[in-house]
Amino acid sequence: MQIQIDRDHDKPLFLQIVEEVERLVAQGHVPDGHRMPPTRELARQLGVNRNTVVAAYHELDLRGRTTAHTGRGTFVRAGTASGRAGIPWDELLGRTLNATLDLHSVPVQEADISFAMNFPAEDLLPVEAFRGALNRVLENEGARILTYGSPVGYGPLRHWIAESMSTPDAPVTAEEIVITTGSQQAIDLMARALVDPGDTVLMAEPGFPGALSAFQIYGAQVVGLESDVEGIRVDALERALARTPAKVLYVVPNFHNPTGVTMSEARRRAVLEVAARHRLPILEDDSGVDLRFEGEPLPSLYALDEDALTTYVSSFSKKLLPGLRVGWLTGPQPVRQRLVALKQLADCSTSLLLQAALHEFCRQGLLEEHLEKVRKQYRERRDAMVSAMRRYFPDGVHWTEPQGGLVLWVTLPQDMDARELLVEARTRGVVFNAGELFYAASPRRHQMRLTFGATPPQEIRRGIKILGEILSRSAGRGTEHRRDQEAVPLV
Amino acid sequence: MQIQIDRDHDKPLFLQIVEEVERLVAQGHVPDGHRMPPTRELARQLGVNRNTVVAAYHELDLRGRTTAHTGRGTFVRAGTASGRAGIPWDELLGRTLNATLDLHSVPVQEADISFAMNFPAEDLLPVEAFRGALNRVLENEGARILTYGSPVGYGPLRHWIAESMSTPDAPVTAEEIVITTGSQQAIDLMARALVDPGDTVLMAEPGFPGALSAFQIYGAQVVGLESDVEGIRVDALERALARTPAKVLYVVPNFHNPTGVTMSEARRRAVLEVAARHRLPILEDDSGVDLRFEGEPLPSLYALDEDALTTYVSSFSKKLLPGLRVGWLTGPQPVRQRLVALKQLADCSTSLLLQAALHEFCRQGLLEEHLEKVRKQYRERRDAMVSAMRRYFPDGVHWTEPQGGLVLWVTLPQDMDARELLVEARTRGVVFNAGELFYAASPRRHQMRLTFGATPPQEIRRGIKILGEILSRSAGRGTEHRRDQEAVPLV
Repeated sequence: MQIQIDRDHDKPLFLQIVEEVERLVAQGHVPDGHRMPPTRELARQLGVNRNTVVAAYHELDLRGRTTAHTGRGTFVRAGTASGRAGIPWDELLGRTLNATLDLHSVPVQEADISFAMNFPAEDLLPVEAFRGALNRVLENEGARILTYGSPVGYGPLRHWIAESMSTPDAPVTAEEIVITTGSQQAIDLMARALVDPGDTVLMAEPGFPGALSAFQIYGAQVVGLESDVEGIRVDALERALARTPAKVLYVVPNFHNPTGVTMSEARRRAVLEVAARHRLPILEDDSGVDLRFEGEPLPSLYALDEDALTTYVSSFSKKLLPGLRVGWLTGPQPVRQRLVALKQLADCSTSLLLQAALHEFCRQGLLEEHLEKVRKQYRERRDAMVSAMRRYFPDGVHWTEPQGGLVLWVTLPQDMDARELLVEARTRGVVFNAGELFYAASPRRHQMRLTFGATPPQEIRRGIKILGEILSRSAGRGTEHRRDQEAVPLV
Repeated sequence: MQIQIDRDHDKPLFLQIVEEVERLVAQGHVPDGHRMPPTRELARQLGVNRNTVVAAYHELDLRGRTTAHTGRGTFVRAGTASGRAGIPWDELLGRTLNATLDLHSVPVQEADISFAMNFPAEDLLPVEAFRGALNRVLENEGARILTYGSPVGYGPLRHWIAESMSTPDAPVTAEEIVITTGSQQAIDLMARALVDPGDTVLMAEPGFPGALSAFQIYGAQVVGLESDVEGIRVDALERALARTPAKVLYVVPNFHNPTGVTMSEARRRAVLEVAARHRLPILEDDSGVDLRFEGEPLPSLYALDEDALTTYVSSFSKKLLPGLRVGWLTGPQPVRQRLVALKQLADCSTSLLLQAALHEFCRQGLLEEHLEKVRKQYRERRDAMVSAMRRYFPDGVHWTEPQGGLVLWVTLPQDMDARELLVEARTRGVVFNAGELFYAASPRRHQMRLTFGATPPQEIRRGIKILGEILSRSAGRGTEHRRDQEAVPLV
């Protein structure tokens, strides 16, 4: 197989290999069923890193040009770009879907030190306590808890959540709680219920890609709103609404992902006032709630809202265990009613067993115990990151200092490109997310998200020192973006 | 509160109460915040069954006319049909959603003997064995298994499924398997990826409401195809395709829900041939696979398909544990690629813990052990139902005798209405699903689905005897359809 690559070309090497193979197949130089050379062999032949060939083969597989059989090798599928039968899949499945697909191809960023994973601290997960809760539930409830649950969720858990959300001014009843398969499902259902193609959706920019894409996939035009240290700017909201009416405003009031900013109470009230005036529904994503490690908790928009504008979603993923996939929503009755119907079609119901175990865990006060422990640790980790940045990052680099949550936002000097920094950092074992991932349009290149929740303080210091060294040399010129094995959750 | 009802009217009593309350509120006779009388009191006052009032209050709550506070009562929300703020929710959330909502309001059918729940046998669920698997996974894997999983699913489980699906002629690799949150999610994702409003979707009629509604919710025009004892009729398929091209054909080849019919191998091949000629994608729902209790297993359409038309979905819900919410799909690479992206937006990933425990369970051979046990029991239950029907059902009633699965289909004499039978049966503690639930359009009234999987043989005989007595008297005149507490999964 005569593959030509050009080291001086801008195009990533792995992509050059992909396109060469496609060319050879298209021109009939390589027959259907041809076995591709082993990655090690092709890497040696081309004089490139083996990972480059692995990435190329993975991309070829993604494009349907090859089929991989474990242990047997990778085989060419000639003329099969759209499936053997000539079903025009790309056309059938096209539409809005393809436009956003790229956003979901976030490569796994494996590295010694990852500031890329917005995961809770794995070393602090309450494995034994949760195992106890699971066992108690299975002992007490038996088979009943292993069958289908109601689409609205497990009664006792709904009750517990309602109690925990209730305030004297804003009581919440169990009937008002709908359990979802993580908060991502709640966002997706809301997007599905509200968005018609071409509708405008408003959200802070940079913003959470999981919400951004969920809206875009249904054809929404996402308009990014500028934020400051108190959250979404009211003037930006007013300007956007003056231009075009919007279907929904997506808000992350506490420890915003990716910026880490918390919306002040005054700003919450101001946003609600504007929304009420414009009859603008609000989707409040409060997945970070309870991860506050300093300052007083603020009332949610949902609690402040006297006009039934707000649908509230949250989850146990960040504050407890991502693997449960248990979140919830509440909001105006007509919204809840439709979202339950959609939820039923989306996955019938959320695992009853995990809901019951979670309820058992919470009921025993173990969640509060866990939160006390992790809040302290997350605060230490944030402090470690911030003080290391002060020490190692050169002048001209700025960052947010969140009062809670697991992420912060770094702004580099204007002329720097976070992707280039990432390429070099990765060679030294450190990864993060370049800021462009968090923009709907016109991404800024000189920003990045660092997560600190999942990394112990000592590792944080070591990683920030490495980033600081690269930044100080203002370096980073490589352009090859690797795609590794699998996509990761957009969290 | 002056509520007028008319016992001789066709309209169900509970609905009359609902509309009376709405009228009184609209005309200002009842103020905002007014406390509704306790159900017992209103029932006495109107001389109706208390359950009728409970159903009416539930409906009022669903419609947003009242708010229930546990322990405090039910309160009128005047002028609040669409939320306090005057956000026109019904308009915003309307569109295709409302049109299908009714289908999802299947009332919980609690009764002494339920032939309505398409659930596996609760008394046979392997609670202790699964608990063992959960504990082993948590001991061996620890925190790692409680964090986010990959959107494509847990590697070892994908591998196990691929092996179990592989045949010498049609090998399947782990890379080709995508884990979903039950097979319902796979169907929903496929519908989302393929259907544009107005597209035609083909499926057997009567058909599975969970698929029917999943297609309709995205705006599909579902065209029902006639089946015979070998499955979907080829002439019906040809005729439908001659009228209009379709986006997808949905097929349940084994132990079809609701008819119980299995598609013969010849019919599978014939359907594939027609589909290939028309370049028609197929969605094969094989959730019942492995629940065969007699006759030889047949190759799936996916395995027979040489034209990459078929996307295959299945699940562990019926054959093992519904509460896991673990299903899977495989199919042409372009389909898989898009569905993984959509899945990620739908719920990030399926619970890693449950996937790992399931893999542990399967790896130890416990699934095969479980299947051997339940197949035998399900066969006994089917036999009990069929022989009781022979004994107790009057002439003119016909039924299918499935070779596997959990359901069968009964056809009454043309002039009978299964809903009327249901009303009377319920008063005697027996419930089932009237056949109309399984039709997209023009439902036939003289059919019903009976499920036998979840009911022990003795109960089956007792329930069929009761149905037989009612049928023999050709009775059943009540018209009131009750809505109880909560909707159930459409399974």
